[in-house]
Amino acid sequence: MKGLEPRISIVTLGVDDMKRARSFYERLGWTAASSSNDDVTFFNMAGMVFGLYGRRALAEDAQVEYFPAAFTGVSLAHNCESEQQVDEVMAFAEAAGAKIVKPPEKVFWGGYSGYFADPDGHLWEVAYNPFFPLDEEGRITAP
Amino acid sequence: MKGLEPRISIVTLGVDDMKRARSFYERLGWTAASSSNDDVTFFNMAGMVFGLYGRRALAEDAQVEYFPAAFTGVSLAHNCESEQQVDEVMAFAEAAGAKIVKPPEKVFWGGYSGYFADPDGHLWEVAYNPFFPLDEEGRITAP
Repeated sequence: MKGLEPRISIVTLGVDDMKRARSFYERLGWTAASSSNDDVTFFNMAGMVFGLYGRRALAEDAQVEYFPAAFTGVSLAHNCESEQQVDEVMAFAEAAGAKIVKPPEKVFWGGYSGYFADPDGHLWEVAYNPFFPLDEEGRITAP
Repeated sequence: MKGLEPRISIVTLGVDDMKRARSFYERLGWTAASSSNDDVTFFNMAGMVFGLYGRRALAEDAQVEYFPAAFTGVSLAHNCESEQQVDEVMAFAEAAGAKIVKPPEKVFWGGYSGYFADPDGHLWEVAYNPFFPLDEEGRITAP
């Protein structure tokens, strides 16, 4: 084996209330896969999967010590085509129940970005980055 | 706007020592994009980007309170084609400096999975899931 393929198959967020978390992401317009159930929710994302799982169950699954929610040290970015689209996405997320953590603004690296938190405090950055192109399917590349 | 496209553009992990973190992922066999620098590292992953950024800088960027590393409540899964490949990936990661958090074993949902932690404690699950097919490019779908 020469190395791992550069691939994230599933991003799983630990949540404290599955019904609350799932309904938040459904209000963003996403459809849960039929394999979802009371304990786990999956959303297909063009070749990868976004999952929700009990925060305590996730710690038990990995056999690590459980801590209550705090700063996770992880952010998920949803990149957009324009500053206007960033504003629209942030407004849409807020209407769906997201907490606006940082309103969108021009940022030091030359883009435009804001942050919202989901009901469990997980951070999503909504960004327009003129240096990281998106193709017609929304797939991003770092130069 | 009817909703957000189901898309994660970038997964960013907050790290305490960029050089240590970057070299760990390079030892997994991944090549940093040329846009990487002392403060940030990007790895292209077939239409999405995996990033490393200072843990404290990430908190400042999102304007949230900083906490030192603990259980993050997030896991990233790297899914494989077989149980044997899970064992190989776990052994490769351990040789690259990963901490084995849970050795691979058969798990209650019918698959086979282990967990390792990167040098900052971020959890990666390495899994074979017979119910979630991978296509020839390694792209996964939840049924």
